[in-house]
Amino acid sequence: MRIAIDAMGSDTYPTPDVAGAVLAARETQDTILLVGDQERIRQELNKHDTRSLKIEIVHASQTITMTDKPGIVAKAKPESSMHVGLRLVQDNQADAFVTAGNTGAAMAIATLITLRRIPGVRRPALSSVVRVGNGRTIILLDIGANADCKPEWLLQFAVMGKIYALNALGLENPRIALLSNGEEDEKGNELIHQTRDLLRKSSLNFVGNIEPKEILRGEADVIVSDGFVGNIAIKSIEAMGSMLFQLIRDEIRQDVLATLGGLIARPAFRRVYKKIDPSEIGGAPLLGVNGVVIIGHGRSNALAIKNAIRQARLAVEGNVIQAIKTGLQQVSTIEVE
Amino acid sequence: MRIAIDAMGSDTYPTPDVAGAVLAARETQDTILLVGDQERIRQELNKHDTRSLKIEIVHASQTITMTDKPGIVAKAKPESSMHVGLRLVQDNQADAFVTAGNTGAAMAIATLITLRRIPGVRRPALSSVVRVGNGRTIILLDIGANADCKPEWLLQFAVMGKIYALNALGLENPRIALLSNGEEDEKGNELIHQTRDLLRKSSLNFVGNIEPKEILRGEADVIVSDGFVGNIAIKSIEAMGSMLFQLIRDEIRQDVLATLGGLIARPAFRRVYKKIDPSEIGGAPLLGVNGVVIIGHGRSNALAIKNAIRQARLAVEGNVIQAIKTGLQQVSTIEVE
Repeated sequence: MRIAIDAMGSDTYPTPDVAGAVLAARETQDTILLVGDQERIRQELNKHDTRSLKIEIVHASQTITMTDKPGIVAKAKPESSMHVGLRLVQDNQADAFVTAGNTGAAMAIATLITLRRIPGVRRPALSSVVRVGNGRTIILLDIGANADCKPEWLLQFAVMGKIYALNALGLENPRIALLSNGEEDEKGNELIHQTRDLLRKSSLNFVGNIEPKEILRGEADVIVSDGFVGNIAIKSIEAMGSMLFQLIRDEIRQDVLATLGGLIARPAFRRVYKKIDPSEIGGAPLLGVNGVVIIGHGRSNALAIKNAIRQARLAVEGNVIQAIKTGLQQVSTIEVE
Repeated sequence: MRIAIDAMGSDTYPTPDVAGAVLAARETQDTILLVGDQERIRQELNKHDTRSLKIEIVHASQTITMTDKPGIVAKAKPESSMHVGLRLVQDNQADAFVTAGNTGAAMAIATLITLRRIPGVRRPALSSVVRVGNGRTIILLDIGANADCKPEWLLQFAVMGKIYALNALGLENPRIALLSNGEEDEKGNELIHQTRDLLRKSSLNFVGNIEPKEILRGEADVIVSDGFVGNIAIKSIEAMGSMLFQLIRDEIRQDVLATLGGLIARPAFRRVYKKIDPSEIGGAPLLGVNGVVIIGHGRSNALAIKNAIRQARLAVEGNVIQAIKTGLQQVSTIEVE
């Protein structure tokens, strides 16, 4: 397998991006293609022992920043590391592309310029793969690609999410749920009501509407929402996590005794943090484009990059793209029309 | 001041409801009217020393449960404690009504049967008053009354939220923000774009779009959203809070040393918990109906009920209802039309 990594992706590129690629190359037999400024990549690689590792450099003369406007740079920087990396996938020179860079730009370049949509896909969806309270790994989509959605798009998100859960996350007969403000049928907005009817008519394992607390308890495997609501749910969860850890840290530092207690209990805190640390997942797929694309957080560290590469490998091994092509055809011909 | 309390509201009614009323009566000179089954209230009151407290019992022969369907019981149980309590406000025999009962039922009975809407109000909004990271108390609305909203409704929510923030929470020149999936203008869904334009044209102190992490940092005072999105944001925040405390508890119990550390640091944890404990706020107003209605959580304890009564008092003292009448007229004549 050959996996292309955006060396110029993360907030502190290329250090974590390259270090993560080295970690990934050590763990597997895969070939890692580091895409970006070849001089900077080479300098960075020199910090590591890369003997016997299958790492190649693919030069890209332009770099997309986090503040670049997606619609503009997709056209204005055709030689960016994202364009070059995604073209490698498009041209079958790589099996997947991983980036911790500007999410909107990666989405625009993948969807509009390089890989484009899988035939039949109405809208690609950004996803988030998260580990929940009971240790289960689940997928939420859309978390930001499409702010306003139609019911048919959400049905497709459910199909794509199911295939990813089954083929890449290894979840048997994934339970599909709609993110809503209550489980009862009368809850939800118009979009939820219409999508629920479509999901009920489908052959998917639809378990109904779900609230945030049930998501975190692992009561479903594929959580479907429009990109606006999904984004706010994910960001609310993240924001509360950060705030609570910060409050605990601040209060523990308030007095000597609490500081002592906190020190003693630190391994327990580390275990909690590890359970919810997004670096342990690393990244999540952009589903619906014609190739495996994994997008990580800008704050990715080397561990996160390594794990994002692992997500890419799982998606390729699970033959996710072909499965989506087949799966969507079935839904669109049998169930929707 | 006379404040009516639903004695049959909370999940474990009437114990916390009555105990909270007693606490409130001890703290102030207000008269507390306990509404519900007079026998059960009397039994409950006997557990407390109520000498010299201004507590009256108002009998109600029916009780609404948490599983009752709002639309049905609003008509089928006309002598419920909610009907009786809200009629006290309607008939000027009480200045406010506080309940920790079935939110949907309280909303339906207040909006459709008793108080009804303030003239000009398109849709009443449920709100949530929360304390955020920096210790500030802010208000979010709508958090569940209206799943599908129009921009004009959100503009009214902003006006009502501003008035509550100013008159009841004591926040000077409250900063109004729209809950969105990003601060930039191109972020947001169609509803956000249209509402943003209305807010910009208004005389409100509109500070723009806001993401969940900025809410928790206290970067705005009045957070406006449709009821579907607001509900999911609030529930996501609550769910993450519960899950994290549970994970920390579980991990600290994993080994003796961590348990010891946790015990030593317990006062620090208590301080953190107190900072985010919804009981410290107690309840939040249903805004837009023609009277002060404060709705608390079903899990309310006595402290929460006491604080919900405090919210009611602040709203009455702040003359919130009259201020909304005036405020909405100004917005509707000058800014929208």
